[in-house]
Amino acid sequence: MTEFTLDERLQADCFEVADLTLSRLLLLDNETVPWLILVPKIADVTELIDLTAEQQSQLLDEINQVSQIVKRLFSPDKLNVAAIGNVVKQLHVHVIGRYKNDPVWPSPVWGNLQDQPYHEEQLQTRLALIRNALKAN
Amino acid sequence: MTEFTLDERLQADCFEVADLTLSRLLLLDNETVPWLILVPKIADVTELIDLTAEQQSQLLDEINQVSQIVKRLFSPDKLNVAAIGNVVKQLHVHVIGRYKNDPVWPSPVWGNLQDQPYHEEQLQTRLALIRNALKAN
Repeated sequence: MTEFTLDERLQADCFEVADLTLSRLLLLDNETVPWLILVPKIADVTELIDLTAEQQSQLLDEINQVSQIVKRLFSPDKLNVAAIGNVVKQLHVHVIGRYKNDPVWPSPVWGNLQDQPYHEEQLQTRLALIRNALKAN
Repeated sequence: MTEFTLDERLQADCFEVADLTLSRLLLLDNETVPWLILVPKIADVTELIDLTAEQQSQLLDEINQVSQIVKRLFSPDKLNVAAIGNVVKQLHVHVIGRYKNDPVWPSPVWGNLQDQPYHEEQLQTRLALIRNALKAN
């Protein structure tokens, strides 16, 4: 069995937030919107239907957990939850908080949002917030 | 309790394929890619996390069923599964077959794909194919 290693592009574009039961939780390095990504730690998986029923059920739990945290911490107007993967093949699920006044609303963020990396202090604050929320959950 | 009625924009842009246990299954009127949409028949729901655990589990079953059908019937290079809803608030989940040679690959289809309605004969063939696959499932 191949060992799971995080896709290089996800590694380059994101910060690691935490290791959950099934997934590695990442924060995309763009401060415009709270953009989290769940990556099931299973090698060679590209589609949701490639997961077993147990893995899917665990992933659903983690999507719920992260969605609730994004909702509570960042009060978005809408959540966007999506497994797309046209560029990065490794299965990953976006959980993104969207705002009616964000720069690309109501368009999807993928391919539309300009680069806007976090400043170090913002980043550390945001990571700490999310990690605390995960512990409290 | 409010009764479920399909959002007017979904009604205008899609054809009804079938009524599943939880969801109404729609086919978007765009022949470029096989684009199916699951709409849970629950009134006033906008987010996945608004569903009960039982409803989520049933929705996951239906996402799996539709994904397998799209994969088997239309042999896409990638599936895109997403609950976005920035424009249409009523909770709906896209299950879309994408191809490396489709006109907007690898960009997301939302907001990028040009109108390309089905011709009547294509539409009837496609609807029959999907309905037969649902029955065989």
